[in-house]
Amino acid sequence: MLAPAAEALGVRFSVLAETADAPATQVISEVTVGDYTDFATLKAFAETVDVVTFDHEHVPPEHLQALAEAGHAIRPGPQALIFAQDKILMRAKMDDLGLPNPAWATITSVADAEAFAERVGLPFILKTPRGGYDGKGVRVIEDLAEVSDWLEEMPQLLAEEKVDFTRELAVMVGRSPMGQTAVWPVVETWQQNGVCKEAIAPAPGLPADKATAITEAILKVAGALDVTGVMAMEMFETPEGFLINEFAMRPHNTGHWTQDGAVTSQFEQHLRAVLDLPLGSPAAREEVSVMVNVLGADHEDLYQPYFHVMAHDPAIKVHLYGKSVRPGRKVGHVNAYGYDRDSVLARARHAADFIAGVDVDPYPDIPAPTHLAADDEKETL
Amino acid sequence: MLAPAAEALGVRFSVLAETADAPATQVISEVTVGDYTDFATLKAFAETVDVVTFDHEHVPPEHLQALAEAGHAIRPGPQALIFAQDKILMRAKMDDLGLPNPAWATITSVADAEAFAERVGLPFILKTPRGGYDGKGVRVIEDLAEVSDWLEEMPQLLAEEKVDFTRELAVMVGRSPMGQTAVWPVVETWQQNGVCKEAIAPAPGLPADKATAITEAILKVAGALDVTGVMAMEMFETPEGFLINEFAMRPHNTGHWTQDGAVTSQFEQHLRAVLDLPLGSPAAREEVSVMVNVLGADHEDLYQPYFHVMAHDPAIKVHLYGKSVRPGRKVGHVNAYGYDRDSVLARARHAADFIAGVDVDPYPDIPAPTHLAADDEKETL
Repeated sequence: MLAPAAEALGVRFSVLAETADAPATQVISEVTVGDYTDFATLKAFAETVDVVTFDHEHVPPEHLQALAEAGHAIRPGPQALIFAQDKILMRAKMDDLGLPNPAWATITSVADAEAFAERVGLPFILKTPRGGYDGKGVRVIEDLAEVSDWLEEMPQLLAEEKVDFTRELAVMVGRSPMGQTAVWPVVETWQQNGVCKEAIAPAPGLPADKATAITEAILKVAGALDVTGVMAMEMFETPEGFLINEFAMRPHNTGHWTQDGAVTSQFEQHLRAVLDLPLGSPAAREEVSVMVNVLGADHEDLYQPYFHVMAHDPAIKVHLYGKSVRPGRKVGHVNAYGYDRDSVLARARHAADFIAGVDVDPYPDIPAPTHLAADDEKETL
Repeated sequence: MLAPAAEALGVRFSVLAETADAPATQVISEVTVGDYTDFATLKAFAETVDVVTFDHEHVPPEHLQALAEAGHAIRPGPQALIFAQDKILMRAKMDDLGLPNPAWATITSVADAEAFAERVGLPFILKTPRGGYDGKGVRVIEDLAEVSDWLEEMPQLLAEEKVDFTRELAVMVGRSPMGQTAVWPVVETWQQNGVCKEAIAPAPGLPADKATAITEAILKVAGALDVTGVMAMEMFETPEGFLINEFAMRPHNTGHWTQDGAVTSQFEQHLRAVLDLPLGSPAAREEVSVMVNVLGADHEDLYQPYFHVMAHDPAIKVHLYGKSVRPGRKVGHVNAYGYDRDSVLARARHAADFIAGVDVDPYPDIPAPTHLAADDEKETL
């Protein structure tokens, strides 16, 4: 999804793809197929471009460090990326910065787990420090017997209290090497089985002081880690405030609404930031924007239901990724925007579920989409 | 500029490019280099794709006819495209449809030109029926001696009265093979030396009955010619109504504002239309949208001034085409949108001229950009 932004900015794009049929190869003309864990491959690729950036955090940090030391522009740099790669380092850093962590501990033995359970109670959350994604590498520990097999595989684990949150929030920032920053509005997110399902921008009813505290927190992190590019911070909202959950240092699912709902999309901003261009405005263009993921269901064919959705709602924005369908896999997302939150939410949810093949009414009773065309009248499209 | 729309729709794109370094090759991964006037090249290319469409009208109509007869999906089809390719056929067709033409005549001799001058006076406009573009193939005839050299080169020419217009207007439609249509708001355009320089959407102060008559006219043309894809109709506004100037059967410069200012861009709509997908909403997202072309000036380097513009106006949208700079050549365009027309116009004009290298104040006194973020308050970005 960076490719369209590169086109508009007049920037040439090369991709190091794992396989010749990776989705990125469908839209980027300069493709190198290779293994991102192999240093020689990375080095050869880096030599063909001005700036290297990422769409995931799994490139080995020692390789990135070596490339940076060899003078390649790695953005975000390994000194920042390591905190998105290693959740234990991240927790310690948030403590250093005085930012709100849930209770946590490094677990290297069953005794550590017992001590942590004594402190926060059961159940608690156990995570692999590296490599987790979309609910993978996360366990809810109800019984301490569930800790030991992971300890045999990994020298250390991260334990976190199970936060009793009111809802989940997320925020994103863009930051350039020159230190310019731009923060998008805070969004409400909804996870289903550990996978992001929805984002609503801006987060409904979020008090201004809480939004300000969240904005200040992500700016503090971005500055302290010298982040370049875009970064997402996921949070738990609690009655007292918020607790930091996770970071991603790349365009992120919780920012997909910006493609159609913000003056500058997260993809354009990421490119502007890693290229050290002045950043674009992160302002919302609409009263409310909603993103709903299309999660693979039983149906292989997304196109037939997509046609229906396009015909049913000519203002909906569907983004498909060109991936094959597997149950629960993110194969696309839907953006909707307008005035009325209930209507926008209903439109986006219906479209995403209908395309995925979830059994929903093809002609639901959704209020007509409203539009911002005129200042004081809400036109029906 | 179709490539980003294809990405979002999940559609694969192949391009037949004239040269290996054509701008399209920078953003489309499947490239065939070949001559679009050579039938064998066209045929071989058509066999690799499901639908063939165009970004100019210069493919020989007899080749398109042969491809269509061989069963290839050519959209728009040759039966429609011929009217954008041949201005004499177009004039005759508009007369057939009862739509408002300026006075015109086919000129095959100096005597024809004399008779036409007697009817409409001097100066009049002389055009080559085929192949004209951006003011090329057009002469203002002040003296009948200026007719004869063209008549030696071409069997027939098109003469048109020089219309005393109040301003120029343009409108675009999307139409699919199933016959669905969607018309964007009518825009005001401004041509400089025969080249489109600006478009303002919607056309300021256009009376509703005139906008309706224009919308009905383009729908009549699109239906009568069985157009598929998007089509632009350029017009002269007169005190009495409007007169048709020209057509383009492809995404058009007067529709570039839709990339950032409409629910569905002309590029997305063109793909939806030629692929026979349901069309998207053509509604304007903003009170006013302005497009200003970046026309090449003396400066080769567009990037340094582009940086300044990005920093100066974080809400401006700049689209560069990756073309080398030649004086007067369209090398990009700028879109701006907001509430206040004077401010939006000034921002877009300044950005386009500054990038091109025109000598303008780097920090002009432009009213702050206003934004649609809130319903009843106009936030400053």
